[in-house]
Amino acid sequence: MENLFADRPVLATGEAFDELLRCRNVRIERIVSSPMPDPAWYDQPQDEWVVLLAGRARLELAGDVLEMGPGDHLFIPARTRHRVLATSDEPRCLWLAVHIEP
Amino acid sequence: MENLFADRPVLATGEAFDELLRCRNVRIERIVSSPMPDPAWYDQPQDEWVVLLAGRARLELAGDVLEMGPGDHLFIPARTRHRVLATSDEPRCLWLAVHIEP
Repeated sequence: MENLFADRPVLATGEAFDELLRCRNVRIERIVSSPMPDPAWYDQPQDEWVVLLAGRARLELAGDVLEMGPGDHLFIPARTRHRVLATSDEPRCLWLAVHIEP
Repeated sequence: MENLFADRPVLATGEAFDELLRCRNVRIERIVSSPMPDPAWYDQPQDEWVVLLAGRARLELAGDVLEMGPGDHLFIPARTRHRVLATSDEPRCLWLAVHIEP
């Protein structure tokens, strides 16, 4: 059985993405962040639900800045521009994202 | 922002299900178990991906008995009979399930 918390890479910059499931129009991925997140904007054609399972993060979403802690989750509708502004060093951020294609 | 770990009911028997998202053909739910899980079989028309985030559990799935710990995740294809045989008392089991309808 695979484990979400196992084999987490320790990155200096950016994020590591692991696909956990691809089924029909759905893709579930694990995201492990470094303390230096990629500052790029995301503008996706698919809806996304994301939960932060460990660490703390600052997100910019549709003009708002959101502070997130462990367990916080949110829905990001398709074509909602968002980006990760900051992520904690210790513990590292661990996310679970569910992408839902049209 | 909603939090996955907040407001977890403490149950004597069975499970509590909270719908976190319903989007297109996808339903994401949080499941909080008691130490006395409902022994009923599940036989679902939809595919399901499930991750155990806290606690330990014993599952029966397609004739196999699986021991699960924190972070373990698995895919349960539609029409795969499964049931929860046991769940830990401390900590209580916390699950995240993603249901994907055809």
